[in-house]
Amino acid sequence: MSTTSLVNRQVYLKERPMGIPQSWHFGIRPVPVEPLREGQFLVRNAYLSVDPAMRGWVNAVANYSNPVGIGEVMRSFAAGYVVKSRRPDYPEGTAVMGLLGWQDYAVTDGRNIRRVIREHDLPLSLSLGVLGLNGLTAYFALTACGRPEPGDTVVVSTAAGAVGSIACQLAAARGCRVVGITGGAEKVALCQHEFGLQFAIDYKAPGFEEALARATDQGVDVYFDNTSGRISDAVVRRINRHARIIICGTASIASWDPWPEGPRVERHLLNKAASMQGFLAFDYEGRYQEAIDVLAPMIRDGRLRYREEILDGIEAAPGSIADLYQGKNLGKRLIRLIDA
Amino acid sequence: MSTTSLVNRQVYLKERPMGIPQSWHFGIRPVPVEPLREGQFLVRNAYLSVDPAMRGWVNAVANYSNPVGIGEVMRSFAAGYVVKSRRPDYPEGTAVMGLLGWQDYAVTDGRNIRRVIREHDLPLSLSLGVLGLNGLTAYFALTACGRPEPGDTVVVSTAAGAVGSIACQLAAARGCRVVGITGGAEKVALCQHEFGLQFAIDYKAPGFEEALARATDQGVDVYFDNTSGRISDAVVRRINRHARIIICGTASIASWDPWPEGPRVERHLLNKAASMQGFLAFDYEGRYQEAIDVLAPMIRDGRLRYREEILDGIEAAPGSIADLYQGKNLGKRLIRLIDA
Repeated sequence: MSTTSLVNRQVYLKERPMGIPQSWHFGIRPVPVEPLREGQFLVRNAYLSVDPAMRGWVNAVANYSNPVGIGEVMRSFAAGYVVKSRRPDYPEGTAVMGLLGWQDYAVTDGRNIRRVIREHDLPLSLSLGVLGLNGLTAYFALTACGRPEPGDTVVVSTAAGAVGSIACQLAAARGCRVVGITGGAEKVALCQHEFGLQFAIDYKAPGFEEALARATDQGVDVYFDNTSGRISDAVVRRINRHARIIICGTASIASWDPWPEGPRVERHLLNKAASMQGFLAFDYEGRYQEAIDVLAPMIRDGRLRYREEILDGIEAAPGSIADLYQGKNLGKRLIRLIDA
Repeated sequence: MSTTSLVNRQVYLKERPMGIPQSWHFGIRPVPVEPLREGQFLVRNAYLSVDPAMRGWVNAVANYSNPVGIGEVMRSFAAGYVVKSRRPDYPEGTAVMGLLGWQDYAVTDGRNIRRVIREHDLPLSLSLGVLGLNGLTAYFALTACGRPEPGDTVVVSTAAGAVGSIACQLAAARGCRVVGITGGAEKVALCQHEFGLQFAIDYKAPGFEEALARATDQGVDVYFDNTSGRISDAVVRRINRHARIIICGTASIASWDPWPEGPRVERHLLNKAASMQGFLAFDYEGRYQEAIDVLAPMIRDGRLRYREEILDGIEAAPGSIADLYQGKNLGKRLIRLIDA
């Protein structure tokens, strides 16, 4: 196969969004696949990832990584197969996951590969969700930062989401009392019946704070926060001594420029000798296989449930981030390019 | 000596303050010293401590300890000598420090003793300051929570204060770039000339944020926070990846009921994978001697400087807390009852 005969459709950043990226901030262009140099290999992307964090990657304000430039391929995780290789350690047919971008093909020297996928009995798409950054985030944020003990009360915001639902199930497997917070009756039902949560609370319903108080009548030992905002304000008031608050996402805040105001947390953290820790999964890169070795067996025997929401075709990519911030999606959102 | 012939002057809580306790919230009463029961001993207090934390001990709102009741002796640290004992492990003459209260004499079974003082070559008063909770707080908050590495930039608020000045000197001894924030020219001079700080910034002076930016041009790795409020807001904007923010005090905030508002920190902690940790020295009670073994030699050879501000007589106690919140005092504030 000659790589130059292949056409690569790329989703690129056309205009820099203020706040949440919409479909019109992106364009799609066909480009030829460049020939491989020594040490490179070509990945055919089968699935593209759609993640809330991508908002931060296109905003101009300082984030944990440099923003995507105008005209550049949209940065994203993707999973696919090596289809041509000039690197012996990545032979053709290898399944990989990495920062391969919103495009059909990616030429890489391996530096943006995050993981070689070896659990071939499970769907490839899982490597972008429950066995991808979502699962890795839930696992390391909960275990390394949250450090839950059996009997601890663990509260998770966006409990029906791709990260939150895994965090809930991992905490329950450790013998914790798990309280999931989510929005709307459909997601509450999903938390209860699909993810098996003992307490699922609708933050949009009247009496949210009272319901939270009842579910956390022994206080809160671990708060796995994906929202910030008024949900967090209610949870933080209920923390126990030595509570661990993990900041994994801020889904309820549309813009951080300027910084929005909210209740100061300092005195409360002090009185409780509690901590608030920002979590980035990249910090645990060397330990990913440790998480996979815990998560994959739980998937195989049904202890860890997940939801996927798969959109077909690269044309679905540009508009796919905005929905995440409207709380519309149920499950990990993916773009399928080929049926793998 | 019969204990019943002794008169004990007690400073008791007369009225519960809203916010900062003033002299009129306290009364002074003479009571006879009760006879000792088996297992008890009598301490003659030589020095009473005056600490910002005492505000929290008398306010009705939930804090890290139960509030002092109306009519009860004001809770405080004090240092003194065992003058009568029915406990063989606390013989007469033993120097002790503990929660002995604002009073001349304390009868105790030992439970409120925090430390037996063995560094008899140093003044007893130090056991309430640089070798007391101030020193222990500075040591454990900095080393266990801040974990500064040589070359790190460490910012300390209330740098001229009893805790802050020790934190600054300990960080400098570890090879850090230390930036102290304090209020007014007199305290800036104290930081520079007495405590040897390379960077001492006056938060009351115009151009505070610019001066902070210059002193922290390599960002902030550790923020030892004793103030909260606008000082913290300025520092938190400058944190580096994996920064550690230690919440040791909130001196700039007069009341936390209701919680005051300020810029939300969640996104910033997330982007930097940084942490904010509330610190209570009580959590390190089993390790106090470890800190003393580091601090006492530094005092003896002059590497660790300290300031004391000693008021004479128990009559000075009731009004002594309020001044702390006006930034008037220079050094650790103490009440001297006998010349020890």
